[in-house]
Amino acid sequence: MTRLPHFVRMVEVGPRDGLQNEKTIVPTAVKIALVERLADAGLSVVEAGSFVSPKWVPQMGDSAEVFAGLTRKPGVRYAALTPNLKGLEGALAAKADEVAVFGAASESFSQKNINCSIAESLDRFAPVMAQAKAAGVPVRGYVSCVLGCPYEGNIAPAAVAEVAARLFAMGCYEISLGDTIGTGTPAKAQAMIAAVAERVPVDKIAVHFHDTYGQALANLYAALELGVAVVDSSVAGLGGCPYAKGASGNVASEDVLYMLNGLGIETGVDLDRLIAAGAFISDAIGRPTASKVARARGCA
Amino acid sequence: MTRLPHFVRMVEVGPRDGLQNEKTIVPTAVKIALVERLADAGLSVVEAGSFVSPKWVPQMGDSAEVFAGLTRKPGVRYAALTPNLKGLEGALAAKADEVAVFGAASESFSQKNINCSIAESLDRFAPVMAQAKAAGVPVRGYVSCVLGCPYEGNIAPAAVAEVAARLFAMGCYEISLGDTIGTGTPAKAQAMIAAVAERVPVDKIAVHFHDTYGQALANLYAALELGVAVVDSSVAGLGGCPYAKGASGNVASEDVLYMLNGLGIETGVDLDRLIAAGAFISDAIGRPTASKVARARGCA
Repeated sequence: MTRLPHFVRMVEVGPRDGLQNEKTIVPTAVKIALVERLADAGLSVVEAGSFVSPKWVPQMGDSAEVFAGLTRKPGVRYAALTPNLKGLEGALAAKADEVAVFGAASESFSQKNINCSIAESLDRFAPVMAQAKAAGVPVRGYVSCVLGCPYEGNIAPAAVAEVAARLFAMGCYEISLGDTIGTGTPAKAQAMIAAVAERVPVDKIAVHFHDTYGQALANLYAALELGVAVVDSSVAGLGGCPYAKGASGNVASEDVLYMLNGLGIETGVDLDRLIAAGAFISDAIGRPTASKVARARGCA
Repeated sequence: MTRLPHFVRMVEVGPRDGLQNEKTIVPTAVKIALVERLADAGLSVVEAGSFVSPKWVPQMGDSAEVFAGLTRKPGVRYAALTPNLKGLEGALAAKADEVAVFGAASESFSQKNINCSIAESLDRFAPVMAQAKAAGVPVRGYVSCVLGCPYEGNIAPAAVAEVAARLFAMGCYEISLGDTIGTGTPAKAQAMIAAVAERVPVDKIAVHFHDTYGQALANLYAALELGVAVVDSSVAGLGGCPYAKGASGNVASEDVLYMLNGLGIETGVDLDRLIAAGAFISDAIGRPTASKVARARGCA
């Protein structure tokens, strides 16, 4: 009844955005096995690590070892978050297939989290962009707080569009729009995406929704209606314990895939294998899966 | 961007459909307090009990006492499920404001659950309809398995439309379409609703979605896009333990209301009071809430 894409590329962020926000420090071998299982499930992009100071993010301190230990599957891109030039150098040395930079759509969030303005944060990525380009490595751009900020509340769609357009103009091949605190609802998601789509082609837009308020799949469906065809998600809903107060989890990949399957949208991802990968990591970190599909299937 | 209703009537089914499926037997006084809290939160229809043999549904054995003990709020309708004439007589004696009958969209489900065909099950409601009409009490019709059956799998939209049309022709003032096993996805939900809307006016259609596979809010949003403006839900997601395998929970009222608020749709329901009612019953039955909004708010 509405325009839905025929194919959606699922970008798996569990091993990075997910595990980074789990309390349990996961052994390198487990991370490697997780990334390999995700690739075997048919995911074509897996964010496998972050090259950032282990002082700031101890969970990601072994990303070089993760990349080095991977048996890579042809056709799969193994991605890394690179917050600065040193991080990029680490990612290039680890032979990451693509890297990612980020900016917030909220000035307050930018100031409180990285202690600089949005504009300054983007300027700092200029040398990262240049060196990645020289190395022939594609760069993805993340925008956070696109549907709300913990400090400012509502964020104007125009503010999101401005950051997205700047990242795109800097050379990011794709812009991932993150509802970091999960407060978005479908009409707001559509208004925000429509504003971004005036500045960035819709086929260069990805959505990255958190399920904190249970709204992620509804928002995702609303995004698909506007032609968005790239979706970030996290196996087992890694990144937020399902039973903790204020859990901030990424939307679970299994639940996203179940909806896409039901909509008749191709993804190339196998649900049973994805559920198995989620059960593997849920067992490893000792908590139940946050995927309702996985729970309904009785696999975790 | 699409046609959404300006007002949605939320039908609260937690005290009946929800508690009926909880293992903990809830004391009558707690049920009464729950129903009163829900009415105080602004819900205009609360399904407060079921007049059915306590041999079959022990949890609902005290529905007469619940109705008798209620301090009723003007403008609120207190509803009861009435599976047969004896049930209707009990509901009328208890001064239920409205009653409900039901049919399955799946022949196998009807046979396995109530040991008769769909047609026979509807015929059996004829005297219930007649006596309710004589008493001036409105009757709601539930259709189960509208987006899937545990025995048959997919259910044809035409089969749902046929049962819905028969219940409507029998005199039901509203038809509630239930995704009993929660396997539906948005496009299938729209196709099913569109088929029903050819036989029953859309303003007489309600949706009743379970969140077993995490799809309920996405399906609900898809239903709103077709103009559906009545939504059944269950406070705290009563009716399915969030941590059990194969939990079959109703979609949580708090999460539905959060989405409707975000969409700018009026409901007359107060989110904080609704969350408080959910916390009250979650405490009483000794399990965490299944509402993500309530968990994010830290109230349960």
